[in-house]
Amino acid sequence: MTGDARPARRGRPGYDLESLLRVAVKLFNERGYDGTSMEDLSRKLGITKSAIYHHVRSKDELLRLAVDRALDGLFEVADEAGAAPGRAIDRLELLVRGSIAVLSDRLPFVTLLLRVRGNTRVERAALARRREFDRIVTDLVKQAAAEGDVRADVDPAVTSRLLFGMVNSLIEWYRPRRGDGAELADAVCKIAFDGLRLPTS
Amino acid sequence: MTGDARPARRGRPGYDLESLLRVAVKLFNERGYDGTSMEDLSRKLGITKSAIYHHVRSKDELLRLAVDRALDGLFEVADEAGAAPGRAIDRLELLVRGSIAVLSDRLPFVTLLLRVRGNTRVERAALARRREFDRIVTDLVKQAAAEGDVRADVDPAVTSRLLFGMVNSLIEWYRPRRGDGAELADAVCKIAFDGLRLPTS
Repeated sequence: MTGDARPARRGRPGYDLESLLRVAVKLFNERGYDGTSMEDLSRKLGITKSAIYHHVRSKDELLRLAVDRALDGLFEVADEAGAAPGRAIDRLELLVRGSIAVLSDRLPFVTLLLRVRGNTRVERAALARRREFDRIVTDLVKQAAAEGDVRADVDPAVTSRLLFGMVNSLIEWYRPRRGDGAELADAVCKIAFDGLRLPTS
Repeated sequence: MTGDARPARRGRPGYDLESLLRVAVKLFNERGYDGTSMEDLSRKLGITKSAIYHHVRSKDELLRLAVDRALDGLFEVADEAGAAPGRAIDRLELLVRGSIAVLSDRLPFVTLLLRVRGNTRVERAALARRREFDRIVTDLVKQAAAEGDVRADVDPAVTSRLLFGMVNSLIEWYRPRRGDGAELADAVCKIAFDGLRLPTS
């Protein structure tokens, strides 16, 4: 993902928009978005506030860029899963695996997204996109239940919340190392889809 | 839980230690612990700071009382589950159900606990107790795997994190209504233990 072609506007040496954004997200995650000022950010970067405003109009714009990085990844995955052939339960598994890949690749951005509480317009917009994503998951669970592949004795909205509750909880402890994202996705899918109870043979 | 016999020290009418603590925890959850000052709390309560200091020595003491309310509940449940007869997988299920009951009964306290990041001595002590609880869960998963009841193809520490990741994610959306905690615990146990995939009959 670091290789993405994003236009870097002119700025002080060493800080294009991308590296500025990464430092800002790290700081927001450490101190909370509300608890971080542009002053804090300029001190951390060792550049003036006006050098920051060369790249972005406001702290809010940094937040928007950051949460959209996470959300865009999740919606790409949802589109891919939605377009896949086969049964809904398989599309649901694709969506879970893809979401874990996004979480692993863009961990600081997803972490920030999941802590957003909705105090500003940017935050409320992010929450609205999260709800839209939840609806996609719930619809897949409903389809899979209608196809007889997913248990119907739990409300589909509850199932989708529990499933992504498990996925999202990864931000609390998972620190990606090269290539271990797929192994973790296997673990999540084994437990979420087939349960931790060993099937009696 | 509201009926617990806790000594209420003398204070202004309407605020014993218990009601002070509840307002403080609500504020901490809304604004973040770091983002809430004793000044904010006194304004919210409509009493002076010295009236607050009549009950507690510091903001830190409020945090300690609050997170211990959550942790004490979880450890009581762990003790009960650990002492139960039968197979480890059944004790693990007891622990999950008991933890959801604590979460439901003491939601604001558990919410605050799960957001603690470890910046102060009180927060680090809370994190140490959380790790101790995680060890208890992991040990139960190991025992259940050794007894052949829990899948051995996922690391027990990962299984216990995913299981409680699902449980803890409830704080994000669950708003308890009388008596629905047991129904939610059923949903969590069905999905976590038996999976969301419908068994092919």
